[in-house]
Amino acid sequence: MTELRYGERIDDLQRNGCRIIQNPALFCFGMDAVLLASFAEQGKGTARRTLDLCSGNGVVPILMDARSNGESGTYTGLEINPVNVDMASRSAQLNGQQERIHFIEGDVRECSSFIAAASCDAVTVNPPYMIGGHGIVSDDSARMIARHEILCTLDDVIGASARVLKPFGRLFMVHRPFRLADIFRSLNEHALEPKRMRMVYPFADKEANMVLIEAVRGGKSRMAVEAPLVIYQRDGVYTDEVRRLYG
Amino acid sequence: MTELRYGERIDDLQRNGCRIIQNPALFCFGMDAVLLASFAEQGKGTARRTLDLCSGNGVVPILMDARSNGESGTYTGLEINPVNVDMASRSAQLNGQQERIHFIEGDVRECSSFIAAASCDAVTVNPPYMIGGHGIVSDDSARMIARHEILCTLDDVIGASARVLKPFGRLFMVHRPFRLADIFRSLNEHALEPKRMRMVYPFADKEANMVLIEAVRGGKSRMAVEAPLVIYQRDGVYTDEVRRLYG
Repeated sequence: MTELRYGERIDDLQRNGCRIIQNPALFCFGMDAVLLASFAEQGKGTARRTLDLCSGNGVVPILMDARSNGESGTYTGLEINPVNVDMASRSAQLNGQQERIHFIEGDVRECSSFIAAASCDAVTVNPPYMIGGHGIVSDDSARMIARHEILCTLDDVIGASARVLKPFGRLFMVHRPFRLADIFRSLNEHALEPKRMRMVYPFADKEANMVLIEAVRGGKSRMAVEAPLVIYQRDGVYTDEVRRLYG
Repeated sequence: MTELRYGERIDDLQRNGCRIIQNPALFCFGMDAVLLASFAEQGKGTARRTLDLCSGNGVVPILMDARSNGESGTYTGLEINPVNVDMASRSAQLNGQQERIHFIEGDVRECSSFIAAASCDAVTVNPPYMIGGHGIVSDDSARMIARHEILCTLDDVIGASARVLKPFGRLFMVHRPFRLADIFRSLNEHALEPKRMRMVYPFADKEANMVLIEAVRGGKSRMAVEAPLVIYQRDGVYTDEVRRLYG
C-alpha cells in the first residue's frame, strides 16, 4: 500500500493500469507531457538509457515505460524539488517500475555531477518555457518553477542534454513555438541538429501553442516537419489522435 | 499589343485582370510563389520598397502589386537569367505595372552592385531549395537553376537580404521544411530574427512540404507559428483557403 502525503491523490494514466501520484496544490502534469512521451516513444528507437530532465512528478518516464510494457530500457529522472522526487519515486513503486525508473534530486545546471558525459541514448525534457518575468506569474512557487525559467534556462537544458548524450543520441523536447528561434539557436550552439519537428495546434485554424522537437547529437542537417497535431475538433471535443493518446 | 516570343503563352492570374507571360518549356510559377505573395502581403505593413530576389518570371511582385491595386509601393525584381528579365518586364508592361515594378538582370551574390545597402523595407524570395547534387535533377538548365542551389545558396540569399534591408526591414521567404535548421542558422548568422512562420501541408495528415517564414532585421527574439495551411481537402480538391488564394 503506497503512502499518500497530505494533499496528494492518485490518477489513472489509462495505460496498462499505470497510475501517478499528484498534488493538485503544487502542479499536475498537462497535455505537453503526454505529447512528449508519445513523440519520444516514436523517435527513440533502441535507446536503452533515457534521462528525463526537469522531471517533475516523473510522468514522462512513467508513461514511456508503461506504454512499452517495461521494454524500453531504463530511465533516470533528474528533478530539483525533493517533494517531487519523493512523489515520483513512490509513483514508480506503485506501478512496479522501480527497477527501471530512478529519480535523482539535482539541479540541471549541475547535471554533470550526477550523470556521466556521453552516457545516455536519449534525453526527454519538458522545461519551463516562460522567460523570467514574462507571462502570467503563477501564485505559488512550485508552479512558477515548473513554468518559468527561474532555476534553469532553455540554454541550460540544451547544454546539459548535449553533454550527457552519446554521439548520435537523441534529445526530445516539448516547448512553445514563440521560443522556436531560441531553440534552434541553442541547439546549433550545442551541436544538436534538429531532425524532426511536430507543430501542435489547439484548433485547425489557430496558431500553434506547442512544438515537439527531436535533435540528434552530431546529426547531419536535414529535417522533417510531421503532419500537424490538432488537439480539438471543436470546443471540448478532442480529435481522434488525441483521444488515442489518452487511451 | 505585347509581343510574345517563341514558346511563350499568357496566363491569367485571376487578380484584377492581371496576366503573366510564361514559357512552359523553361519554367512556370508554382503554388509556392502564390503562397509567398499572400504571406508577404499580410506581413509587409507599410513597406514602400520591396526587393524580390531570384525573381524568375516576376510572378511575386506582379501578384503583390495586383492584389494591392498598385498601392503597395515599388518593386524591384533581381533575376540572373536575361530571358526571364525580358519576359517579366513585358508582363509588367502588359498589366500597366511598369511604373511600379522594375526588373534588373543580376546575380544575387553581387546584389550590392545593384541595390544600395539598407535601402529596402522588404525582401521577398522563393530561392532554389535543393542542395547541389541532391534531389531529382531536372533535365533542362532553366528548371535546374530555379530548383537547385547552383548559382546561389540559401546563405547567399539570406546574406544579400540582410544587407539590403533597412533596420527592422522584413524578409519573406518560401522554402522547404527539410532545410529549416539551415534557414534558422543562416538567419541567425545574418542578424535576421524569425518572427512569423507558417507550415504548409499538402494534406491534413501529411508532412509539411513548404514553409513560409518572415524575419526582421535586428528584431527581438519572439515568434509565432500561424495556423496550418493545408492545400488539399481531398485528392484534387483544394481547401477553401487555397481556393480563395487563387481567386
